Amino acid sequence: MQLIKNRLFNGTEGEIALAAELFESVSAMPIISPHGHVDPRLLAENKPFTNPAELFIYFDHYVTRLLHAEGFSLAELGKGDTSPLAARNAWRVFCENWHILAGTASGFWLTSTFEQLFGITETPSGKNADSLYDQIAAQLLEPEFLPQALFKKFNISVLATTDDPLDDLQFHLQLQHDSNFTGRVIPTFRPDQYLDPRVSNWKDNVQKLIDTVNLDSVKYVNFIKALEDRRAYFKQHGAVSTDHGVHEPYTADLSESEAERIFGACLSGKASELEKREFAGHMLTQMARMSCDDGLVMTVHAGVFRNHHGETFENYGADTGHDIPVAVEFTNNLRTLLNKYGTHKNLTLILFCLDENVWNREIAPLAGFYPSVRVGAPWWFFDAPDSAMRFREKVTEIAGFYRGSGFIDDTRAFLSIPVRHEMARRVDSMFLARLVFAGRITEDQARQIAVDLVDAIPRKAFKL
Amino acid sequence: MQLIKNRLFNGTEGEIALAAELFESVSAMPIISPHGHVDPRLLAENKPFTNPAELFIYFDHYVTRLLHAEGFSLAELGKGDTSPLAARNAWRVFCENWHILAGTASGFWLTSTFEQLFGITETPSGKNADSLYDQIAAQLLEPEFLPQALFKKFNISVLATTDDPLDDLQFHLQLQHDSNFTGRVIPTFRPDQYLDPRVSNWKDNVQKLIDTVNLDSVKYVNFIKALEDRRAYFKQHGAVSTDHGVHEPYTADLSESEAERIFGACLSGKASELEKREFAGHMLTQMARMSCDDGLVMTVHAGVFRNHHGETFENYGADTGHDIPVAVEFTNNLRTLLNKYGTHKNLTLILFCLDENVWNREIAPLAGFYPSVRVGAPWWFFDAPDSAMRFREKVTEIAGFYRGSGFIDDTRAFLSIPVRHEMARRVDSMFLARLVFAGRITEDQARQIAVDLVDAIPRKAFKL
Amino acid sequence: MQLIKNRLFNGTEGEIALAAELFESVSAMPIISPHGHVDPRLLAENKPFTNPAELFIYFDHYVTRLLHAEGFSLAELGKGDTSPLAARNAWRVFCENWHILAGTASGFWLTSTFEQLFGITETPSGKNADSLYDQIAAQLLEPEFLPQALFKKFNISVLATTDDPLDDLQFHLQLQHDSNFTGRVIPTFRPDQYLDPRVSNWKDNVQKLIDTVNLDSVKYVNFIKALEDRRAYFKQHGAVSTDHGVHEPYTADLSESEAERIFGACLSGKASELEKREFAGHMLTQMARMSCDDGLVMTVHAGVFRNHHGETFENYGADTGHDIPVAVEFTNNLRTLLNKYGTHKNLTLILFCLDENVWNREIAPLAGFYPSVRVGAPWWFFDAPDSAMRFREKVTEIAGFYRGSGFIDDTRAFLSIPVRHEMARRVDSMFLARLVFAGRITEDQARQIAVDLVDAIPRKAFKL
Repeated sequence: MQLIKNRLFNGTEGEIALAAELFESVSAMPIISPHGHVDPRLLAENKPFTNPAELFIYFDHYVTRLLHAEGFSLAELGKGDTSPLAARNAWRVFCENWHILAGTASGFWLTSTFEQLFGITETPSGKNADSLYDQIAAQLLEPEFLPQALFKKFNISVLATTDDPLDDLQFHLQLQHDSNFTGRVIPTFRPDQYLDPRVSNWKDNVQKLIDTVNLDSVKYVNFIKALEDRRAYFKQHGAVSTDHGVHEPYTADLSESEAERIFGACLSGKASELEKREFAGHMLTQMARMSCDDGLVMTVHAGVFRNHHGETFENYGADTGHDIPVAVEFTNNLRTLLNKYGTHKNLTLILFCLDENVWNREIAPLAGFYPSVRVGAPWWFFDAPDSAMRFREKVTEIAGFYRGSGFIDDTRAFLSIPVRHEMARRVDSMFLARLVFAGRITEDQARQIAVDLVDAIPRKAFKL
Repeated sequence: MQLIKNRLFNGTEGEIALAAELFESVSAMPIISPHGHVDPRLLAENKPFTNPAELFIYFDHYVTRLLHAEGFSLAELGKGDTSPLAARNAWRVFCENWHILAGTASGFWLTSTFEQLFGITETPSGKNADSLYDQIAAQLLEPEFLPQALFKKFNISVLATTDDPLDDLQFHLQLQHDSNFTGRVIPTFRPDQYLDPRVSNWKDNVQKLIDTVNLDSVKYVNFIKALEDRRAYFKQHGAVSTDHGVHEPYTADLSESEAERIFGACLSGKASELEKREFAGHMLTQMARMSCDDGLVMTVHAGVFRNHHGETFENYGADTGHDIPVAVEFTNNLRTLLNKYGTHKNLTLILFCLDENVWNREIAPLAGFYPSVRVGAPWWFFDAPDSAMRFREKVTEIAGFYRGSGFIDDTRAFLSIPVRHEMARRVDSMFLARLVFAGRITEDQARQIAVDLVDAIPRKAFKL
Repeated sequence: MQLIKNRLFNGTEGEIALAAELFESVSAMPIISPHGHVDPRLLAENKPFTNPAELFIYFDHYVTRLLHAEGFSLAELGKGDTSPLAARNAWRVFCENWHILAGTASGFWLTSTFEQLFGITETPSGKNADSLYDQIAAQLLEPEFLPQALFKKFNISVLATTDDPLDDLQFHLQLQHDSNFTGRVIPTFRPDQYLDPRVSNWKDNVQKLIDTVNLDSVKYVNFIKALEDRRAYFKQHGAVSTDHGVHEPYTADLSESEAERIFGACLSGKASELEKREFAGHMLTQMARMSCDDGLVMTVHAGVFRNHHGETFENYGADTGHDIPVAVEFTNNLRTLLNKYGTHKNLTLILFCLDENVWNREIAPLAGFYPSVRVGAPWWFFDAPDSAMRFREKVTEIAGFYRGSGFIDDTRAFLSIPVRHEMARRVDSMFLARLVFAGRITEDQARQIAVDLVDAIPRKAFKL
């Protein structure tokens, strides 16, 4: 399809004209991407992308899950044979089933990327699968399609990755020392596997953590010290935030001695399920405590049942399309943390969930009172036009525009970064235009807010 | 009121023109109604409808509940005296209170049916109640208003009823042998009363089930065998699906011996509430197992508190307007079933609920991964324009158009079938037109999807 | 900003023209405000408002919470120094941070009030803070800005306050005897602090209640008698309703002896948490029983975690902006009450919550069957254009227009009453216009409904 100038705009002529004008004013502004999952190695090594299947299918579980739902095996979609022949076959499957992506977030970003990056306006199909494959494959060999060139072309002002606390951040260092690369790529401290004793391998993880910082015995005080130490290492290498993916955002506050006791019980396998939950909740509060000290922003992504289908997880590992949202609760769960640190001037706590009812029931009201709390952008499944519009409609009346996080692309798919931000900017422009036409804000306000949403607001939220 | 050409369409001129064009392309396509509650006897006996009250009020608890809420007794609305005089009085009450239906799903379908079927465009009121009654009553005596004639006129390609597993399906057989009737009316296997030991009379139901298939002792293995036998009987007589109305869609998977033990405990009245829940959950998983064997599609309708008002239930029985939705959860509850059979090529599991937050939080993500899972259409209270639009907006970005069930009317009100499908087709046309104008899909895609939504998609979902 | 004629209207030219016409037809109709929190003393004493900060900031925790979230202390926003100098400083903070209110409900009502009441169309800022302060302060000294003059100007037909059961209602009496004041200001019986043994000071509250009605011993039968007595006192002084703010709307029905036993256990500090919950649930059912006797309407506001931030509560007390909504459930919780009194002709039970998913999942279905139940208007955080529109879209298809409460402003901010009702009338007009253009209701119906929504419906709901 041919991209239209006014895409994502629905409304009267006047509303659309104003939306277009607002979008125009921000469309060329640099992208701030303070949370995502791009592999820093991709940029550090700066090798050409192998082929269209690797680029658009293999690592995008938004796409593979829908093909899986249509009956295709993950083995033929990057989790098995990835030979050139297999890649071409995967691409064919993808093109033949293009219709299943119609109306989805993935369909939108792929369509945009095909045209904007590769000049492709044909609708993918079984017929043109091979020629599209060849066309893209050829372009991937051009220097302007190397990751670093794209980074520059995308006008990314800052890109945050998500990293294990024990990661030595070698690719980040390599990028910082790469004289050809002037972009800013920063790590994010993601300690889930160390904080929650219910995680498999938790004991090993703790041992490795203690070892990494050269402490000699596995005890609670060293565990805390090691985490502080790794945070400092991350901060020193540019990190501005820590990220926490939790099933429930439960927080607790144990006494030092109680924390020590349960920590021991967890290590010796004698802790009850309740004690493990208390400990995990305590560690979330400890993270807030450390943020008050070191200033790292906390982002909390809550309410996902990870790896829902056991067999797929066993065969193909995590991030294979079957993380399924569940109901989530913040008001009660976060109370302990917020009562202790919610008004601390150093804390920023950005809340994300996949339960849109919670946006206006809990998150916006919390962000409308606590200086530390901010409303996380529509995330994951909600990273799409209608969801993003509902997000604005539900959150703005309660918390205004200035208690948000700015848009977060949260993506593994490097090529999708510009179009995701474009989507957010277009939806926000449309929303603002509607408010102006309904006399709810002035045009001047709209113009200022449009700019702030992509600049001042994410900068403030992530202390950039 | 006079029906307008562009009804249910809101948008710009261009959007409405395209919506109208898309609707035009599907408005005459046959109706596939793969789940509903029309009584097969109605069609088999093919007798004239008695009078307007019986036709529009007595059996439509969408309507009677709202009149009840306004203070009228169910006794005067079909649950007591139904003499001709009483029927006329019920009709008068209905006409005098026409305003309470404004904006409701019932108001919409009644208005359409009055005009499209009876040529009535006057707004019902106390003043014209009698003349409307007479006008409709006269028409009901005409041969074109006999149920079979309407079935043909409605252009119904297939109509599924919902039936007790022990039903001998005599009316379905009668219809199949009726040389004057060429329509396809198929049964649906609805075993709730046999699967859940918490149902009153469960023990008797099980006994009757075992007796029906001529097995001699009430034991678990025979219970399973009897269910399989009755499913085979239903399938042999045209059934394509089983239907499951559950309070919560909890699934479990007991060992053979454990299932046998709890089955016995349930029969002897010694089972605990937890054991009963486990058994009911186990039987839902067993239904999936049987579906993998016999290919019958499973539909699950979850999250309703049945018969909320005890006194009304005692006096007037079930389906009297006080089934009230409750919160529902699929992600955790269905996991056992899905881990066992979720990727089985023979299983189709269509999920319905009355908690719209679950549409995009759980159902669309599940359907976007598991080949077996499909998103059930907006059901019951949501079978109306604004709800149906929200459904598309919430589900499409996550699961696309092709993981759905197609529209399901789920109605007892035979006359409302065409207008309900018209509603769905109009809303879908409007939604598609908006996507086209926002540059999210092409016109060609929209045209194809509009057709697929009423044909290929429900056919595939229900294996028709 | 300059208010536009068609504010809050988005739609096609035709839709907006009709919305404007519908709004025109009701814009001058008297305001019925059957539930709110204006202090009756304000009207009784009829003194000039002190200054702009007191008028617009100090008592409006919608506003102060957002300033608090931006980092300002509640101490400088009315909870500390309130000298003229401090007031001017608070006003300056407010003006300098005007942008944080853009798009919020507060931003909307403040903008309207500035222009409609004070003729101010400038956007507040640091620059004009002082001049705006002076301009408003000067006007506040004019006789037309005295509370009673405003009451008349606002065209309020009836205003209900919310009062403690032991309040002697002196200000209501004073207003009734004030020959210069012809308005109707009625009290509302709000007994939360007496019904729930989990409330701090409950024991003292009960003692005071018994004392107030001159009963000699603190026992259950006297407790009940005292409540009945105070309800009678309120009714005698004009009350039409009782109001119940509950964390969960749980209802129970204890035997007389069991209630007496638990009441005693609560007083002696020996009751378990479960027993306290049962007692609180029992008392809600008792309130319904009393309503069947005395005819007072019950309003239930459920699902709020009060005083979420302990430190702020300790320092500044309640109603300081950190009451945070939680998930709420009515279907199961209310069943005991509804099974006992749900069809009683004297009971009206209006349900409010801050969990919009419950509007169409539970409240509308309940109100669509039980004659006693009505759907409460979008409340508190939802008292804003987009939320109010979603409310209509979610509720109308299930319960129609006539099972509602009419708009409820629920405000402490006296000046905001007209604009809040204007907001509701505009949104309803827009919603009705859309239904007309989609052929879902006739223009005649829309005209009638628009009028009924602001007159017949609230009158019937609150027995006015």
